[in-house]
Amino acid sequence: MVGIIMGSQSDLPIMEQAAGFLKSLDIPYELTVVSAHRTPERMFDYAKTAKERGLKVIVAGAGGAAHLPGMVASCTTLPVIGVPILSSNSIDGWDSVLSILQMPGGIPVATVALNGALNAGILAAKIIATSDELVAENLQKYQDALKDKVLGTVDDIKAKHPNHFDQ
Amino acid sequence: MVGIIMGSQSDLPIMEQAAGFLKSLDIPYELTVVSAHRTPERMFDYAKTAKERGLKVIVAGAGGAAHLPGMVASCTTLPVIGVPILSSNSIDGWDSVLSILQMPGGIPVATVALNGALNAGILAAKIIATSDELVAENLQKYQDALKDKVLGTVDDIKAKHPNHFDQ
Amino acid sequence: MVGIIMGSQSDLPIMEQAAGFLKSLDIPYELTVVSAHRTPERMFDYAKTAKERGLKVIVAGAGGAAHLPGMVASCTTLPVIGVPILSSNSIDGWDSVLSILQMPGGIPVATVALNGALNAGILAAKIIATSDELVAENLQKYQDALKDKVLGTVDDIKAKHPNHFDQ
Amino acid sequence: MVGIIMGSQSDLPIMEQAAGFLKSLDIPYELTVVSAHRTPERMFDYAKTAKERGLKVIVAGAGGAAHLPGMVASCTTLPVIGVPILSSNSIDGWDSVLSILQMPGGIPVATVALNGALNAGILAAKIIATSDELVAENLQKYQDALKDKVLGTVDDIKAKHPNHFDQ
Amino acid sequence: MVGIIMGSQSDLPIMEQAAGFLKSLDIPYELTVVSAHRTPERMFDYAKTAKERGLKVIVAGAGGAAHLPGMVASCTTLPVIGVPILSSNSIDGWDSVLSILQMPGGIPVATVALNGALNAGILAAKIIATSDELVAENLQKYQDALKDKVLGTVDDIKAKHPNHFDQ
Amino acid sequence: MVGIIMGSQSDLPIMEQAAGFLKSLDIPYELTVVSAHRTPERMFDYAKTAKERGLKVIVAGAGGAAHLPGMVASCTTLPVIGVPILSSNSIDGWDSVLSILQMPGGIPVATVALNGALNAGILAAKIIATSDELVAENLQKYQDALKDKVLGTVDDIKAKHPNHFDQ
Amino acid sequence: MVGIIMGSQSDLPIMEQAAGFLKSLDIPYELTVVSAHRTPERMFDYAKTAKERGLKVIVAGAGGAAHLPGMVASCTTLPVIGVPILSSNSIDGWDSVLSILQMPGGIPVATVALNGALNAGILAAKIIATSDELVAENLQKYQDALKDKVLGTVDDIKAKHPNHFDQ
Amino acid sequence: MVGIIMGSQSDLPIMEQAAGFLKSLDIPYELTVVSAHRTPERMFDYAKTAKERGLKVIVAGAGGAAHLPGMVASCTTLPVIGVPILSSNSIDGWDSVLSILQMPGGIPVATVALNGALNAGILAAKIIATSDELVAENLQKYQDALKDKVLGTVDDIKAKHPNHFDQ
Repeated sequence: MVGIIMGSQSDLPIMEQAAGFLKSLDIPYELTVVSAHRTPERMFDYAKTAKERGLKVIVAGAGGAAHLPGMVASCTTLPVIGVPILSSNSIDGWDSVLSILQMPGGIPVATVALNGALNAGILAAKIIATSDELVAENLQKYQDALKDKVLGTVDDIKAKHPNHFDQ
Repeated sequence: MVGIIMGSQSDLPIMEQAAGFLKSLDIPYELTVVSAHRTPERMFDYAKTAKERGLKVIVAGAGGAAHLPGMVASCTTLPVIGVPILSSNSIDGWDSVLSILQMPGGIPVATVALNGALNAGILAAKIIATSDELVAENLQKYQDALKDKVLGTVDDIKAKHPNHFDQ
Repeated sequence: MVGIIMGSQSDLPIMEQAAGFLKSLDIPYELTVVSAHRTPERMFDYAKTAKERGLKVIVAGAGGAAHLPGMVASCTTLPVIGVPILSSNSIDGWDSVLSILQMPGGIPVATVALNGALNAGILAAKIIATSDELVAENLQKYQDALKDKVLGTVDDIKAKHPNHFDQ
Repeated sequence: MVGIIMGSQSDLPIMEQAAGFLKSLDIPYELTVVSAHRTPERMFDYAKTAKERGLKVIVAGAGGAAHLPGMVASCTTLPVIGVPILSSNSIDGWDSVLSILQMPGGIPVATVALNGALNAGILAAKIIATSDELVAENLQKYQDALKDKVLGTVDDIKAKHPNHFDQ
Repeated sequence: MVGIIMGSQSDLPIMEQAAGFLKSLDIPYELTVVSAHRTPERMFDYAKTAKERGLKVIVAGAGGAAHLPGMVASCTTLPVIGVPILSSNSIDGWDSVLSILQMPGGIPVATVALNGALNAGILAAKIIATSDELVAENLQKYQDALKDKVLGTVDDIKAKHPNHFDQ
Repeated sequence: MVGIIMGSQSDLPIMEQAAGFLKSLDIPYELTVVSAHRTPERMFDYAKTAKERGLKVIVAGAGGAAHLPGMVASCTTLPVIGVPILSSNSIDGWDSVLSILQMPGGIPVATVALNGALNAGILAAKIIATSDELVAENLQKYQDALKDKVLGTVDDIKAKHPNHFDQ
Repeated sequence: MVGIIMGSQSDLPIMEQAAGFLKSLDIPYELTVVSAHRTPERMFDYAKTAKERGLKVIVAGAGGAAHLPGMVASCTTLPVIGVPILSSNSIDGWDSVLSILQMPGGIPVATVALNGALNAGILAAKIIATSDELVAENLQKYQDALKDKVLGTVDDIKAKHPNHFDQ
Repeated sequence: MVGIIMGSQSDLPIMEQAAGFLKSLDIPYELTVVSAHRTPERMFDYAKTAKERGLKVIVAGAGGAAHLPGMVASCTTLPVIGVPILSSNSIDGWDSVLSILQMPGGIPVATVALNGALNAGILAAKIIATSDELVAENLQKYQDALKDKVLGTVDDIKAKHPNHFDQ
């Protein structure tokens, strides 16, 4: 249902965060390497057949001059989520962020934060939830759990600073 | 089906590009001003009731320290598309881009290019198309039309530079 | 008297510098976690009740797309001091700095330097000192102590470089 | 009660926005030029005598390598609000923003957005309001008026796009 | 011999500077529009057949998230020269510069300055000159003419400032 | 056939990547240090005699205010490839990138990515291949090998995530 | 006594500000165009003979990849003052600033602000004043006049805002 | 003869490079800490008495919002050399560079590279050499030694890569 692709195997530790989130919500996904620059035909085939293979969303991560998300978006009507990745020899991540974000009119890429693969996974689930109420409920539970986790840290700090009560 | 909101009436000329695209594909939308900083309660109400009012996607544009897209995303499970807008006294748009893009883990915003409201409209349509084949077909036609428009300019240039034939 | 809040427990080591300064001047404070994105209702409650609970100043620290200081400022007439924090996956801190600094007309945030929680604590004390002469005197002593500390390093360097006398 | 100073007469059109806000709230202020680089003695005198002359807050605006706010802060225990100004030959305002914001530990400057003199005036009023309930009430009225102004634009857009109802 | 392509007809006024230089040296060239994002198949065909059609160098200009030069380079062994173009809604040209420059190891693009299409034309000629002595001689004449042009301005300034003789 | 020069011996580990690539394709090269600022005469001599000594391309790497590539380009008609190098005390590499990339009209430098010496070597080979079919064939084999290497990582990931089949 | 050079005639309106200041202090100067990239021999000759021709300081202005100040500094023991100039197609002046400022250890350039030719002229005079008491006195008068000019604007503002007295 | 000052003792390891160079040329210097923000009176006294105490040049280093060089320059007619220092919590050094470089018209600071204290020492010597031929000769010897050091590394590389002869 979700295709997760990345420009290089070195992006895997980041991109597995998207996969992990989808797994936690029982959303089927596939995960592989597709390089825009080193396997351009593979990229085209992947993008052009994505919809007929049953994908609903594509999550694409890449670093440096990151052309993968935008090029995939140019070959499909599926929504494409781009994950800028901070790779070695990057100029602080700016190259990846701008290569993915600043797409021309007509071909959007839904860009998330630098190394934001977790958020890419969540966004993919939000898109699927627009037509799947069960996923929507699970997303609500996830957002509630985030809240509970913060409230847990509130208690931690209260215990650590007992004379400085919060609200 | 799509909620288009903006932080200030001055963002309207940009954000109308999203509305225009949705109109061209007969996708219903609503359009209004919701300011995170000047009408925070209205923003919360808008975000919290969006799903029950039938919205499937929210497109939110803002300039400067642009908190609207991220704050709306924190109050709904709907996918939120953020449009950074180059406003007066912005530092070249960087403030808006980074305020929208660099969301923390857990609360994604699907960010498009600076002033990229057209692409936000297309992305909203792509999301709706994941469960609406007619919209998907119309998106394919739109992408084909983009191609035809480029090929038209190829002919223009060929006419202008007749001795330098292209492919 | 001073509310110190932060977007995440990971900001605590930085934000404790604000608390430490206030403690050294016997200014009462409270310290807790309030996340704009993960606990938006808590943030609104915190901000809206801050004044009636007796707070005079709020110090708010956050990293990345740092919306906490600005959103708190939108819900209170108290002065809000924002501390940009260099978090992991930040783009060198620019995201946090610009998200806090570039607030639109009408809703100011008093922004200090990246990771500048000590200065946020001092600034909070300076604000309180506008109506509390004892705090003002203590601030003057603090500024005098800073001077003495520098003069101490002057002596260290003079001892280390005896043939290169300073003034 | 509030001292508004600027590094150059060319900053006046921006800095008058701070004065205008204070005037609208009947908060007394003085307004003048104090150049850190061209009149350093005047700057020292201004800062050192500010408190005894009855000032409670200083608003200082400057462009380029903007040393005025920080240097004034080093000579007084009053809170100093810094306004970065986009001057000619500035590098997009970055010089002014960073010269004012990135103060070392010990000497804070409350920095507002580029050209954000209006917000500096509001912030000064918020500081005074910590010990003046009338000013606090007026600030609340101002914030309510901001909200009403936004709601007015909501009606404008509703009239312009009648078939796309908002909330 | 040289293929000059651009992502959009709006890049033509810049890219014609490359064509003009090649024309001045009687180096054959073709000039057309090839959009990576709107006509991806055309781009692939162009790149894959470039060598067999007799091209020796490709000059590719694009703005924003500029994927054209890098994608063309991934489909040919010909040297590809990339021209970053400052388009509307660009973030000061950084997007285009970094999208073209920061290519990953294996797929180089010879990047020139922002809007540097003239230099792209000269660089193409320098590449052809590695196996064409006549072009090399013409390039030497061009470099000599640049020198003469500078010396002409020396005389202009001498005439304007007669009492301040140069060397 | 290719001259590889660098501004300082500390650049050698990076620049050896260019040499290594040329060696792998049996393209003769020379490798040495030429400092624009510390040995300006040597630089001039190197550039002015490069063509008559049989060089076809010059690869020049430098960090900080990197003047070597541009100055060499000003003294020869050979194509010059510039490699920005991230040196100590660099401002994140921006100094080197901009000093090499932003050459004025008339004197191009073919700039590659930060620390992109491998790509500089490949680009040099691509230039030589414009008149040497054997090198062109070897480049095609290299590009094919890049593809095979990516496909190998595809298999690695498939083995690691067996339930998430790719295409 | 002072050599003022610039990379292009288009820099003249800026660089004449340096000349104008020196003229106002009766310090002899020469003014001409020397292009590092288009007239490299002329640049070398200029730098190498500068001292014997009686120059004490060189002021060099250039835009883009601005190599002139650094290259001149590499060929003389005279102090060289660099003026970054905002030229067309510059990336907001960063290229020129960093190309001049970030010189490697051993070869300093005294860099002034973007377009700061007036300050370059003053700095040249300050250097000459280290061995010429008359120039030192004139510089003191100039600094006093700057102060008087500021005080004049103080009076202007006092007249304009009579009810808001300054110090 | 040369005053070397720094804003904080933590700057000493960098600033000792300026002292070391002056010592190697037997140029007398003094070395101390003067903080613009923590010891403003000391800074004023230092600057105002510098000339009468026999100083000819002042070298001032500082990090973050680095006001020391510019403020010292505002109180003396001596040339002031500014050294931007990369301190903790700096935003990659940009704050320090821009705070020192972008001085307004009238008050120049001769800025060197980030952490460029060695170059500041050399520049101070170059200024002294304008009226001291012995220092000028020693600077020429230093520049010659730089050249010899580079030529030594040429031999190192030749030994390491014997089959790839340089010029």
